[in-house]
Amino acid sequence: MAKRSTVASLSALPDGDVVVAGWVDTVRDQKAVQFVILRDETGAVQLVTKAVRELDPEAADSAERLALTELIGTLNAGTFIRVTGQLAHDERVKLGGLEVKISALEVVAEAQPEPPIAEDSSIDKRLDWRFLDLRRPEANLIFRVQTVFEHAMRTWWVDNGFIEIHTPKLMASASESRAELFEMQYFETTAYLAQSPQFFKQMAQPAGFGAVFEIAPAFRADPSFTSRHATEFTSIDAEMSWVDSHEDVMAMHESVIVAGLTAVAEKLGPQVDAAFGVPVVVPTTPFPRIPLAEAHEILTARGYTVPRADGDLDPEGERQLSAYVKETFGHDFVFVTDYFTSIRPFYHMRHEGDSNLTNSYDLLYNGTEISTGAQREHRIDV
Amino acid sequence: MAKRSTVASLSALPDGDVVVAGWVDTVRDQKAVQFVILRDETGAVQLVTKAVRELDPEAADSAERLALTELIGTLNAGTFIRVTGQLAHDERVKLGGLEVKISALEVVAEAQPEPPIAEDSSIDKRLDWRFLDLRRPEANLIFRVQTVFEHAMRTWWVDNGFIEIHTPKLMASASESRAELFEMQYFETTAYLAQSPQFFKQMAQPAGFGAVFEIAPAFRADPSFTSRHATEFTSIDAEMSWVDSHEDVMAMHESVIVAGLTAVAEKLGPQVDAAFGVPVVVPTTPFPRIPLAEAHEILTARGYTVPRADGDLDPEGERQLSAYVKETFGHDFVFVTDYFTSIRPFYHMRHEGDSNLTNSYDLLYNGTEISTGAQREHRIDV
Repeated sequence: MAKRSTVASLSALPDGDVVVAGWVDTVRDQKAVQFVILRDETGAVQLVTKAVRELDPEAADSAERLALTELIGTLNAGTFIRVTGQLAHDERVKLGGLEVKISALEVVAEAQPEPPIAEDSSIDKRLDWRFLDLRRPEANLIFRVQTVFEHAMRTWWVDNGFIEIHTPKLMASASESRAELFEMQYFETTAYLAQSPQFFKQMAQPAGFGAVFEIAPAFRADPSFTSRHATEFTSIDAEMSWVDSHEDVMAMHESVIVAGLTAVAEKLGPQVDAAFGVPVVVPTTPFPRIPLAEAHEILTARGYTVPRADGDLDPEGERQLSAYVKETFGHDFVFVTDYFTSIRPFYHMRHEGDSNLTNSYDLLYNGTEISTGAQREHRIDV
Repeated sequence: MAKRSTVASLSALPDGDVVVAGWVDTVRDQKAVQFVILRDETGAVQLVTKAVRELDPEAADSAERLALTELIGTLNAGTFIRVTGQLAHDERVKLGGLEVKISALEVVAEAQPEPPIAEDSSIDKRLDWRFLDLRRPEANLIFRVQTVFEHAMRTWWVDNGFIEIHTPKLMASASESRAELFEMQYFETTAYLAQSPQFFKQMAQPAGFGAVFEIAPAFRADPSFTSRHATEFTSIDAEMSWVDSHEDVMAMHESVIVAGLTAVAEKLGPQVDAAFGVPVVVPTTPFPRIPLAEAHEILTARGYTVPRADGDLDPEGERQLSAYVKETFGHDFVFVTDYFTSIRPFYHMRHEGDSNLTNSYDLLYNGTEISTGAQREHRIDV
């Protein structure tokens, strides 16, 4: 069977025979002509055929054309079809300046006449029919952005000599707080789901790996129903030896984010802007850095006092600080540094001059904390 | 602090000041001169200094040099050090044709005098001290090969428009056989660990993703203690729409393996050959294909009858078939195709002409099954 062409590839092809395949977006069944908007994973294209409503004994292919016209008349939105036809570039066609004249159309998988979700369906209903909801071009685009972003990050790490590791998700003991631990029967004993690859990536340093990264699931038995908590999430981790301070870690952190956003801007920037009205901005480096104590002063000056007794920023504090950074430096990112020792785990290194502060940071992006970093404490006797 | 140079980068640097860091491999403490072989994640380098055994009142740095000599005399193998010195290219130095004359040496983390594992330690003991065992260059190399191989595969997928997905590992129901399912308490209900991303990657097709891939952990509660079973493993998965048959899947499968092995051969081929005595061979395409029924005939002709009643190949059958392919075609890989319907899951498509056979395959590599593929059955009424 002739190979299908993706919709996105059509604009570069010459006029002539093509095979396209995807699902029916809409059908316009006019008296003399029929249009099908076909969508695939790369875009949408207009298919067209003259409608043949009656048998014409003098035309050899009349029965075939009549059957095609009737078939198109029955197509439901969402039905998967494969179409053989002739590509014709034509500036007058609004959708991409080209169309495909249908020679033959095969129904591969038929959709129900009434789709279970519509434009205005609730999020719960959409999630019940997730595979249909993902056909929306904006939903598809999110996964493409993720693919490009991750691949650019991994490429930066690989090009810089980092080793990719796959750490165990079934563990014999907890890696972070025991409170958020999923527990399970493991044959005769008990296992826990990894909350983080933290200790494994740290142990890769005395193993002499130099620098490592991992993108993998992590699990936290956290029943909070907020956008900041999830029982399962994809954790992006890196760790490297021989840093002088957390400044080296922040420099690496900046580099992978810039690599990721550069790739997204180049490959998908216009699509993201068109779909979401958000231009993809590649940030300048270095990102602004603000010590936590100074962040509190900035927030106080803006009339906001962080309510948390331990001094950590709350979500509103993060939003306010990002707003300040945007106004002052025109930057989407900010490293909040030098967290108090009392609110950081034991493996964050203390300041050389002040044991109440750590060589650590959180990274905020447009008002939300997206990651945490630190220089590790390797001294057993601290 | 001056940035460290990796050992591998030294050969391209001019003579002059450098910082190197890693762990002590060996110390040769001679009367007049001391040598330290330093190892890092990229290789090994010889450090050298004149031994100063007595204070010389006429030399300004005499006390400092004496202290350095004494410090080097106490270094244990495995101790992490950071060294400032002068790089000198010198053809007479067997190890890489260069050495570093030590100016200053800092002990960063001291090793015990007696390492808990040695060259001849048992595998159990090695695994107890995994982070030390991984310092062996051959162990490190395995992870570098994995990194390069995976990245080349992902690059092929990304370049060919595949979307990377991260499918849930906590599931509400089983995805394969219920027998090998890990079960756990999930708040008020029960969850299962994903045995495979199978159904998610299939559902990505009606979602209109076109083609997807994932490299992620999978879990099987299989207590067998063989090299072919593991409770947790890294599963490499891809799935694509619009295939004409499993031939299209095999073509993709070949392409990613060739991409992976090409990258390994280019970047690490000589190291792999030196460490393991195994040249990295990039296979020619297409790989040989042998239908399962024909495989049985070949094995019978070699005097081996597969003992399994269901007709699937056993490990010895796989080894024998790979030996035949190596002798006959000089190839390390073979696709065994057209598996009997009775030994394949329901989602493997049946042959158009013979419902007892499926459009499926296993891939053998040097005698071991490394993967399984098939055209999916999308017809509900089969």
